[in-house]
Amino acid sequence: MIPNSINDLIESFKLLPGIGTKTAERLAFSIIDMDINNVEFFSDSLVNVKKKIKHCKICNTLTDEEECFVCNDQNRNNEILCVLDDSKNVFLFEKMGIFKGKYHVLDGLISPLDGINPEDIGINKLLERIKKEKFKEILFAFKPSIEGETTSLYIKKVLDGSKIKVTRLASGVPMGADMEYVDELTLERAMADRKEIE
Amino acid sequence: MIPNSINDLIESFKLLPGIGTKTAERLAFSIIDMDINNVEFFSDSLVNVKKKIKHCKICNTLTDEEECFVCNDQNRNNEILCVLDDSKNVFLFEKMGIFKGKYHVLDGLISPLDGINPEDIGINKLLERIKKEKFKEILFAFKPSIEGETTSLYIKKVLDGSKIKVTRLASGVPMGADMEYVDELTLERAMADRKEIE
Repeated sequence: MIPNSINDLIESFKLLPGIGTKTAERLAFSIIDMDINNVEFFSDSLVNVKKKIKHCKICNTLTDEEECFVCNDQNRNNEILCVLDDSKNVFLFEKMGIFKGKYHVLDGLISPLDGINPEDIGINKLLERIKKEKFKEILFAFKPSIEGETTSLYIKKVLDGSKIKVTRLASGVPMGADMEYVDELTLERAMADRKEIE
Repeated sequence: MIPNSINDLIESFKLLPGIGTKTAERLAFSIIDMDINNVEFFSDSLVNVKKKIKHCKICNTLTDEEECFVCNDQNRNNEILCVLDDSKNVFLFEKMGIFKGKYHVLDGLISPLDGINPEDIGINKLLERIKKEKFKEILFAFKPSIEGETTSLYIKKVLDGSKIKVTRLASGVPMGADMEYVDELTLERAMADRKEIE
């Protein structure tokens, strides 16, 4: 009953994560009233992302170029490397402007239960880079999780014997959080990581 | 910092109603991992909707053809015309299969405060059709609102003197609703429209 062209668009929106039928219908109908230039921009942007996005040759971050804007930036601190499991977090950190070193993005985290081993997430490329660029500190910025811990420990073990300092982001109670909403694991970690007030 | 191609896509998603920056970012990044065929289908669907969708020559419902599937259907009840203010509701009614008559979609509702007058919403086309097709009943299925009331009353007044029965959808307490969540206006209407139990 719904015209095919609208139905196709509804099905397209339903391909997106978290978009159900009702929302897909609402979004599809909104396109009918949208300016044609905006619709064409949207349509082109979709295909462009697939065509243009690649991984930085050096750090594996998503980029439109051969090398990403951080690897191309001569003013970064070359002594510290922040290792992440998702390019999105590089953009997040840069937006916040809280880190001035270099980045390296793994293709996920080690998860033996899911059959994801070190060689599947590009750890060799990371190790080669660490060897070559002589970082003094490697900082892990993974989402706090078993997989994050496993990956951090694995890399730390491989680097054992070198003089590289290996760190991770502090875990603990988020600033501004109500204590009653903090989960047990976070509180346990916050206790273990407690800092002396100086 | 975010590659231009991703940024363009984020801006595109932000054009959609109810999609903020965070959701737009999440959706844009999800496209990177989506199958290229699906992305191309999505991209084509967007432009196709703008290219192909038109209004049915007879009833003004959105359609890919010159005439919509209802106007083309010989098995409809030609005595009753349901007048709506949005094509979406034609598709909704048809999905539910609760109405077997014909439809006519106005280009909105009369709203003097917003400068929307009868001639702006295609009422002349509706009146011509009513005259020509000799309906016995006109049923208004507008969203309950001041504008809906105004539009219904205006058309009823124009039809005064003809033998056409003019009706509207019943207003009242929705089936399954908790009384405590029913608003005052709805309850007032449900009282006024109360029906004798037979």
